[in-house]
Amino acid sequence: MREIIRSGCPINLTLEILGDRWSLIVLRDVMFGNRRHFRELLMKSDEGIASNILADRLKRLVAEGLLSKADDPSHKQKGRYSLTEMGIALVPVFAAMGSWGRRFLPVTEEMSIRAELLEQGGPPLWEGFMAELRALHLDAAPPEVSVLAGLTTAYREAVERRAALV
Amino acid sequence: MREIIRSGCPINLTLEILGDRWSLIVLRDVMFGNRRHFRELLMKSDEGIASNILADRLKRLVAEGLLSKADDPSHKQKGRYSLTEMGIALVPVFAAMGSWGRRFLPVTEEMSIRAELLEQGGPPLWEGFMAELRALHLDAAPPEVSVLAGLTTAYREAVERRAALV
Repeated sequence: MREIIRSGCPINLTLEILGDRWSLIVLRDVMFGNRRHFRELLMKSDEGIASNILADRLKRLVAEGLLSKADDPSHKQKGRYSLTEMGIALVPVFAAMGSWGRRFLPVTEEMSIRAELLEQGGPPLWEGFMAELRALHLDAAPPEVSVLAGLTTAYREAVERRAALV
Repeated sequence: MREIIRSGCPINLTLEILGDRWSLIVLRDVMFGNRRHFRELLMKSDEGIASNILADRLKRLVAEGLLSKADDPSHKQKGRYSLTEMGIALVPVFAAMGSWGRRFLPVTEEMSIRAELLEQGGPPLWEGFMAELRALHLDAAPPEVSVLAGLTTAYREAVERRAALV
């Protein structure tokens, strides 16, 4: 899938895989939104990803080893995407990008509450979140406390607060 | 410079600015290589950036507020690029990407030694490095210990070790 490797620098190699905004947007939606099917990723996309771009990026992410694809146990005709360990290990990268974006860019409250919580919780929270993602995506044993539920509740509350203001 | 803003999510907004591999490669070279002039960024590029892409990305990075451009005090005809606070604040993002790349991608030793040191040093080292970048790029007072000198020495030693093996 990849073009020529231009240098063995870890930043360069990371960008050769992730240096396309849509790849990380798709991974974000699988990770934080637990969207596991093509249709969900397409219909619920906040950025309005195009169908052909989504199909291409899913294929690339599977080829690069960041996602895996399997038949859905409940819908045989639908593929179900899961994060691999390589995909789950991006949590600190997303946390760092989220903190930076919150500080310098015109983010909205409801879309940035999860980044804020990840920043406040720091590495121990990221570890808990990664443990939970391993349970959701890799069939590992679930952790005692759900970080994702906390992030999702905070996000929904921020959406409701905003709706109440309109 | 930017296209339509697609959502107020901090990850999305960050990717709208940085979601192009060359932008981050150029910032990396300014930050870790202290390359401040167009010609240096072009000639020393490990990834062989093309001249038109470099010119475009420098222009964009200045427009987005990640770099500033000024006349060089010693060469009036040459522009000199400096990181802004917004650019310097990317240190934790680079550190997170570097750690992830080192773990999962086929990095070379000499190109990944700096990522390794940033990972080992953690947030206190990143703070020291950012203080040093503020001295180099924003005329702040220099910190007592130079992180960049340590990173650069480790990098040169790794290059020499590799040359000795050939």
